[in-house]
Amino acid sequence: MARIVMKFGGTSVAGTERIRRVANIVRAQAAGNGAAGGNQVAVVVSAMAGETDRLVNFCREANPLYDPAEYDVVVASGEQVTAGLLALTLQAMGCPARSWLGWQLPVRTFSAHANARVDEVDAARLLASMAAGEIAVIPGFQGVSEDQRITTMGRGGSDTSAVAVAAAIDADRCDIYTDVDGVYTTDPRIVARARKIKHISFEEMLELASVGAKVLQTRSVSLAMKHSVRVQVLSSFVDDGSPPADTLPGTMIVSEMEMQNLLEEGQVERQTVTGIAHDKNEARVVLTRVPDKPGAVAQIFSPLGDAGINVDMIIQNVGRDKGETDVTFTVPQAELARAQALLEDRQDAIGFNRLITDARVAKISVVGMGMKSHAGVAATMFTALADRGINVQAISTSEIKVSVLIDEDETELAVRVLHTAYGLDAQDPVAEDA
Amino acid sequence: MARIVMKFGGTSVAGTERIRRVANIVRAQAAGNGAAGGNQVAVVVSAMAGETDRLVNFCREANPLYDPAEYDVVVASGEQVTAGLLALTLQAMGCPARSWLGWQLPVRTFSAHANARVDEVDAARLLASMAAGEIAVIPGFQGVSEDQRITTMGRGGSDTSAVAVAAAIDADRCDIYTDVDGVYTTDPRIVARARKIKHISFEEMLELASVGAKVLQTRSVSLAMKHSVRVQVLSSFVDDGSPPADTLPGTMIVSEMEMQNLLEEGQVERQTVTGIAHDKNEARVVLTRVPDKPGAVAQIFSPLGDAGINVDMIIQNVGRDKGETDVTFTVPQAELARAQALLEDRQDAIGFNRLITDARVAKISVVGMGMKSHAGVAATMFTALADRGINVQAISTSEIKVSVLIDEDETELAVRVLHTAYGLDAQDPVAEDA
Repeated sequence: MARIVMKFGGTSVAGTERIRRVANIVRAQAAGNGAAGGNQVAVVVSAMAGETDRLVNFCREANPLYDPAEYDVVVASGEQVTAGLLALTLQAMGCPARSWLGWQLPVRTFSAHANARVDEVDAARLLASMAAGEIAVIPGFQGVSEDQRITTMGRGGSDTSAVAVAAAIDADRCDIYTDVDGVYTTDPRIVARARKIKHISFEEMLELASVGAKVLQTRSVSLAMKHSVRVQVLSSFVDDGSPPADTLPGTMIVSEMEMQNLLEEGQVERQTVTGIAHDKNEARVVLTRVPDKPGAVAQIFSPLGDAGINVDMIIQNVGRDKGETDVTFTVPQAELARAQALLEDRQDAIGFNRLITDARVAKISVVGMGMKSHAGVAATMFTALADRGINVQAISTSEIKVSVLIDEDETELAVRVLHTAYGLDAQDPVAEDA
Repeated sequence: MARIVMKFGGTSVAGTERIRRVANIVRAQAAGNGAAGGNQVAVVVSAMAGETDRLVNFCREANPLYDPAEYDVVVASGEQVTAGLLALTLQAMGCPARSWLGWQLPVRTFSAHANARVDEVDAARLLASMAAGEIAVIPGFQGVSEDQRITTMGRGGSDTSAVAVAAAIDADRCDIYTDVDGVYTTDPRIVARARKIKHISFEEMLELASVGAKVLQTRSVSLAMKHSVRVQVLSSFVDDGSPPADTLPGTMIVSEMEMQNLLEEGQVERQTVTGIAHDKNEARVVLTRVPDKPGAVAQIFSPLGDAGINVDMIIQNVGRDKGETDVTFTVPQAELARAQALLEDRQDAIGFNRLITDARVAKISVVGMGMKSHAGVAATMFTALADRGINVQAISTSEIKVSVLIDEDETELAVRVLHTAYGLDAQDPVAEDA
């Protein structure tokens, strides 16, 4: 018997009919029905699709500059409703079940309202209830602050709730059911020959999530990595819960150590590049003719950092005149207006000539553990893009990732070109990778 | 400076625009703006109109025989949303405000889920927050059980929440804003010359609420009586919050002692009958030829009592044959099928001949403290009804109430006839009583 956490997103629980479907999948894992069943199960649920938007809109109408503590009171109700309804549905099927709200467990959080981080999940009562045969149903996205107020964890926070619960109860597996059936080598809507990845390391998934792969909230992946929670991404629509979980065609996100074992056993073949992600939510900012002297760059980026604006790619070009340089960087599109206002206020102090912005850019990233031991990954990327006439506007790299900034119109072309260049294309459209 | 509780029902908070209107009324009471303002204010809110029905329907779809503990998790969310939104709206107007959920105060309840009763409201933190100038916004209808689960108090429970909070903080007044602007001598939709009652005693209000006057939940009135909370019923639609509260044209529900003072001061003129209520939700049951022997009646009513079926009017007629009697009584229409099944199962034990039911009946009640000192109130009633050919099927009385059961079709006629007979008609339609 294993102890597992199952998480279902908003689309999977949109309406009582879909909740019934989810309950069937949960029951198959929980009931004593052979290979798959007989597990101790905790289920984490999102709000019904559309519900969080409805509640957020109410908050905006009530108060455009809303107090995040009261915002949390309003929006957390969406997950509360789904949790109660799933518990009721499971009971109707004869499965003992009860809901545990964020403040009841409790799921202790710290940091800001509306963007809280999980500090600790108290699992004592949860474990006792699960051991007694009850399925635990937990609303995702919500927790409780030190002063006993409701907190929420930001959009997509239910993934993080699921991983945090899995870590707290030392679960054998955390299954994230979503509207895609796994992690692909790239977005299958762009590349028909994208392959589903059967195993991926935390580090790779973290890089992919942070550069635009929408499958999991970035924070949930880093939490899984920290606590070594095995996370599986799979679809709640393909499966009716009957096949045993270990043959479900999802993607398993595992530690680098487990990945090494799978490689040595020949179960996985390591690719140089594991996946390709794209992100159209960045905007480019260019400051021209910035004085090329010590401290000038700090004048630009310190105020942005103080304002909580996340700067990603940075390049410094030599300007036309000596003693001057052009500085290019990217910020999230949503922060562009704020960044621009902030910098224009400081034009004299920074000493730049013009501020040019461009929201029509895309960031394309190639990610893979294999890069550590393979040279030439970046060169392959630049050559492949140059061959198709795609201009690279900025570059940033990490140990297992290379990202480039390009014209937004060339996004799909670039992704396709790179998918082929790194040998990721499947024989048949939508086949499965090792 | 006074300490007041203001309660707003579902129609008053249906949507952010109406919540803004409510916030204006609250601000007028709370802000330091002269006669009315400058009070310490706690606001109790219902769910948006229609929201509780939507949530109850979800529960029914999920599980027709729903677990009331999970039902409470789902339906309590409606009030939670409104509370957060009202706090946000007040903040947008510059009024410090915060929400206090049932489990946060806490509002401790006992007895069953879905129909919990308030045990105690812990007011320590609430009072500190109000003293610091914050408007407290409290979702009605909800509390927390001893084992830290969400409870709800049954439909209309927000009235009870408001009175319980008022009792706990020793409020000077509990204002119930509703979609009518006070308590009337009878339903103004039936009698155009119904008069608004300016002062009514707890006892009279309790009798009126229990026999069909929909203005307040019965339980809230008995709680107000127990803790001597002065309750005012007034409309959130007539008033924009600007006139001082003590001249608002609502109905004040007060203790019998305060009523006596008002009578002695000549501010109130005591009527024999204060109000007339009607209730079409009763059903009549007749058991014919029940053996007329000791214990026979207990055979009928003990099982109904055990099943929690509330029997109201009871009459025992002498049957045509000696040693037999017909027994007539009323039960709530919603319980009729259950009562019938229960009695038919026991036909042999009870020994009745036929069971006849009739849901097309109405109970008409006249209520008034003045009955204690005036004889002939019941006689006036029977004469007035008989003069119009209305047949009385059953009678029940209390110290300050006489109720009769009549044909449902004659409801409006009976109410009009009695309103005139007791001298309650206003000179002009919808005038005000003393």
